Amino acid sequence: MAIHVHSSSQLGEKVETMIEWLASFGKTKNGGVTRLLYSESWFFAQEALKEKMNQCGLNAYYDDVGNLFGRAEGTEDSSSVILIGSHIDTVIDGGKYDGSYGIISGLLAVEYLLKHCGPPKKTIEVVSLCEEEGSRFPITYWGSGTITGKYTFEQIQELTDSQGIPFIKAMKDCGFGVGKFPSPLRNDIQCFIEMHIEQGRMLEQKGKALGIVSHIVGQRRYNITVIGESNHAGTTPMTDRRDAIVIASQLITSIADKAKSSGVMATVGKMIVKPNVPNVIAGEVMFTLDVRHHNEDLLQHFCLEIAQDLQRVSDQNGVNIIAEEWMKVKPVAMDSYLIKISTEVAKHQNLPYEFLVSGAGHDSQVFGAYCPTALFFVPSYKGISHSPKEFTDKLDLERGLKFLIEYLYQLAY
Amino acid sequence: MAIHVHSSSQLGEKVETMIEWLASFGKTKNGGVTRLLYSESWFFAQEALKEKMNQCGLNAYYDDVGNLFGRAEGTEDSSSVILIGSHIDTVIDGGKYDGSYGIISGLLAVEYLLKHCGPPKKTIEVVSLCEEEGSRFPITYWGSGTITGKYTFEQIQELTDSQGIPFIKAMKDCGFGVGKFPSPLRNDIQCFIEMHIEQGRMLEQKGKALGIVSHIVGQRRYNITVIGESNHAGTTPMTDRRDAIVIASQLITSIADKAKSSGVMATVGKMIVKPNVPNVIAGEVMFTLDVRHHNEDLLQHFCLEIAQDLQRVSDQNGVNIIAEEWMKVKPVAMDSYLIKISTEVAKHQNLPYEFLVSGAGHDSQVFGAYCPTALFFVPSYKGISHSPKEFTDKLDLERGLKFLIEYLYQLAY
Repeated sequence: MAIHVHSSSQLGEKVETMIEWLASFGKTKNGGVTRLLYSESWFFAQEALKEKMNQCGLNAYYDDVGNLFGRAEGTEDSSSVILIGSHIDTVIDGGKYDGSYGIISGLLAVEYLLKHCGPPKKTIEVVSLCEEEGSRFPITYWGSGTITGKYTFEQIQELTDSQGIPFIKAMKDCGFGVGKFPSPLRNDIQCFIEMHIEQGRMLEQKGKALGIVSHIVGQRRYNITVIGESNHAGTTPMTDRRDAIVIASQLITSIADKAKSSGVMATVGKMIVKPNVPNVIAGEVMFTLDVRHHNEDLLQHFCLEIAQDLQRVSDQNGVNIIAEEWMKVKPVAMDSYLIKISTEVAKHQNLPYEFLVSGAGHDSQVFGAYCPTALFFVPSYKGISHSPKEFTDKLDLERGLKFLIEYLYQLAY
Repeated sequence: MAIHVHSSSQLGEKVETMIEWLASFGKTKNGGVTRLLYSESWFFAQEALKEKMNQCGLNAYYDDVGNLFGRAEGTEDSSSVILIGSHIDTVIDGGKYDGSYGIISGLLAVEYLLKHCGPPKKTIEVVSLCEEEGSRFPITYWGSGTITGKYTFEQIQELTDSQGIPFIKAMKDCGFGVGKFPSPLRNDIQCFIEMHIEQGRMLEQKGKALGIVSHIVGQRRYNITVIGESNHAGTTPMTDRRDAIVIASQLITSIADKAKSSGVMATVGKMIVKPNVPNVIAGEVMFTLDVRHHNEDLLQHFCLEIAQDLQRVSDQNGVNIIAEEWMKVKPVAMDSYLIKISTEVAKHQNLPYEFLVSGAGHDSQVFGAYCPTALFFVPSYKGISHSPKEFTDKLDLERGLKFLIEYLYQLAY
């Protein structure tokens, strides 16, 4: 059985309007969005979405870490849940679509189905996951991680943000982590579905409207600290220095070269220099390393090579180099049955689609290790993401939503 | 005529005690000192020194930028002044001796002479110069620069510190720059004398007690900004990136290599990365470049080479690279007559001395282009400076002071 989504219903307008509305929470002067976990803008966004979910005919509720759910009770099965959504948090000065589109398209799809087809047979919940990016605290997927049992409160006891604010305090200041809401851990999730912008160029380059993800890359993140010797910039001979900036620069250059030749994605996105003044040789530099590939063995091999480099450079320069791994996620395959249904829906809608590997990490990665999971992409303008310039065309937003409506119909009605 | 400085007068004790006392203003948890221009710790230090100068029998007064003077009127000549001292400001988490020793030794020397020899024939002033390091605002030698006419208030109208606080505001908040005190510009300075720690290893390695400086190196400082493209760390192919951190790292590596081979001192001490998060490719990196040599032509040649590199890298990578020069000081020779007298005093005291070039910039560099100037060094433990580990042995502090007492006696009595 199939559903025909009305073209008349201005779904594109609706998505765009709602994207702009959600972007108004944490809007930056550059036109981007900064919504860090448990910040004020984050909290106001969740509160506003809670109200919106209720307006759309869903029953909205929080769990104890601040994941927000909107539930549409199934007429035949309320013991298991089809979960659909994405994350509400952003990177610093990120885009309007990353995460938001998954929540908004899910919400509008369920609203459409409730309006045109009545309550579903199977229970559907739309989720606004509290955290995915790892931009405030050195932990990622806090939202999906607590739902699936990957994380408990143990993992965040010691964590603080760059201002030194403890994770626990930030969470409690928003009213979470105090047992006021149900535990995030779930055992009733039948499958997870996430719509997202591609954040890459492939769909745009190939002229496709829908990306059906087969695998999500594995990721590892490290803090690498080079401890040299701080000294006077004018009186310490060049040959007599243990300059942490120069040594870090050599490492970063060689990491980038190795990544190019190996096919692995490697990024140094953050650097902290001490004491960080013009006329003093830097005594210490911390830089982050983000490594990704969908082949676990290749990933492992690359990280071992880097570790050997660090050791060699440390020995050659008489400096101490410490590498601390703070994130390790294995590559994950999406569910074949869910993929099969999606191709049928795409064909029924004459939607040009492409199978691809996701280079970005997503909550689907965490759910994928826990329950059948599907991840779908809509095109990103020039592939730009994590930037105020992030953009997806209205037509593409609408095509994604129409796909999702019929897809959800197939799964829940 | 000569003076015999009493060995019994515990001058070493006195210097050490006063160094510790002055270091208590702006002391850091690492045992270093942070006294940035016009900060609270800076202001309290000047106020305390003002009181101490008066206690030592000098007439203390400020000028309109916050340079602090202690005047001992000459019996025969009060129209010209022998100026002696150094700077009160420090780098972030710097040492106790840098700058402070020049002020303290000058003050104790004049106190000693007033006590044992009465008032001088020629007027002596001890000065605590307000700023030399350039650690808070992108300007150096503000103290000596305003005295010698190198700077007026024009140069600082637009300057702000890293917090965005305007220079003008910081100055006025301390009560300066509002015409309450006499203008800093002087036309009555006969010569300038500065005692300082070497901040290098030569005296220690050669077992000498006194460094007589022949030249001070020229210096140039730049802010170099690489403007690439911020993008997603997981979906932007390595070959498709304009990563500001990777490009800055290549530049820093090649600058360090070029410096080693050319004999020039080049230091990148400060880096600012935007947006500076682990999973976002950096769109912009600003780094400082500090270049020094006592040969102006060599300095010029090196800086031109770097400029050509920046152009080449900018063209090759399709990024914008902006280099802004914010400091340019020529090499300066110290006064030959003042050097001659100093060697006679050193010989008279059987003080092992060494002629050397100063790799560090000093206020003497600014005064040297304006009036006869002499700069003397005492040893630095392991040459460590601009660090809490900065140290000079009590005996060396005392030998420097004894030298200065007799030297001042020769010039002013």
